[in-house]
Amino acid sequence: MNPSSIDFYFDFSSPYSYIASEWVEALAARHGRTVSWKAILLGATFQAAGLKSPVEYPIKREYSLHDFERSARFAGVPLKIPDKFPIATQNVARIFWWLHDKRDTTASHWARHALRAYFARGVDLSDVGQLKQLAAEFGLDPDVAERIWSEPAWKARLKAANDSAIAAGVFGAPFFVIDGEPFWGNDRRAQIERWLEKGPF
Amino acid sequence: MNPSSIDFYFDFSSPYSYIASEWVEALAARHGRTVSWKAILLGATFQAAGLKSPVEYPIKREYSLHDFERSARFAGVPLKIPDKFPIATQNVARIFWWLHDKRDTTASHWARHALRAYFARGVDLSDVGQLKQLAAEFGLDPDVAERIWSEPAWKARLKAANDSAIAAGVFGAPFFVIDGEPFWGNDRRAQIERWLEKGPF
Repeated sequence: MNPSSIDFYFDFSSPYSYIASEWVEALAARHGRTVSWKAILLGATFQAAGLKSPVEYPIKREYSLHDFERSARFAGVPLKIPDKFPIATQNVARIFWWLHDKRDTTASHWARHALRAYFARGVDLSDVGQLKQLAAEFGLDPDVAERIWSEPAWKARLKAANDSAIAAGVFGAPFFVIDGEPFWGNDRRAQIERWLEKGPF
Repeated sequence: MNPSSIDFYFDFSSPYSYIASEWVEALAARHGRTVSWKAILLGATFQAAGLKSPVEYPIKREYSLHDFERSARFAGVPLKIPDKFPIATQNVARIFWWLHDKRDTTASHWARHALRAYFARGVDLSDVGQLKQLAAEFGLDPDVAERIWSEPAWKARLKAANDSAIAAGVFGAPFFVIDGEPFWGNDRRAQIERWLEKGPF
């Protein structure tokens, strides 16, 4: 049996997801694994679990904003929390699933492209104009992109992805499932590495 | 100027605090630092920040119970979440502050002794009889111990410790403050080590 791929759940507005997105492919490859990228809306998983974002609690927010950037520096990833944060990410996520379902191998490239655009360059993924421009940069026709994220079929596809994530026990992001084992958070990187190297512990 | 000591905030019912309590002294010593142990009640800091314990959310609870034990194995620390969890920890914490304020160097030893008793042996620190027996094991007169945790002065001392923690921005445990820099969680160990080695990053 081939080793199973790593399920990697992320939200385009999650700083820790962005940091993890910068190391997950290389880590997987070092251990002969592939990565199944899964764009979700954190809002949906928070709601299902009765949770709120850490940045909705003033005291935790202040720490979190500091920790996002410190954790990025620690990982060697360029990150500056944009003035507009967090943002709605359903449109960029629907484009992800459209590419994914076409079996287009660039779906994960789109994910990395968009995460970097938001967190390193401050491109507002919730702004239709900026998102169309980002699509064009990526080689997608911006009008096609807009049509996709407006279509009921791709709205339903993202909703199904959220529902699958919730059914898999996902309540935050990034969230990894490897050989059935759940790992929540960018800060579980060392445990994930141990698991890939030596198996269950 | 001597390097400042590491403020280490912990709750006796916090599994991640227990794991951190097993490595914080050695890590500090390797970098010429001391540790200022500070027993707090997580309930007080949660309330101040508008937060709840992760184990109060059913979906997060299931993951957390698994992650507590996995994170302990990863750190090489024996831990089995007791059947009665979490528990009230004000009495064991008041003993800590009594030892601390006597400038008794065994205050941190008491902390480690009690954390290990609860998390490795299942001793119920919220049970008066078991806590008195634990005090006796540690070389404290159990009746003196009981008198201390019943005294208004030591109740006030713990409340003051909670208030100081809240004023310092503490909203969870373990929580570390090093040279004014806050680090929340057992999983910030690698960042703490980097800070101690090379300073701000």
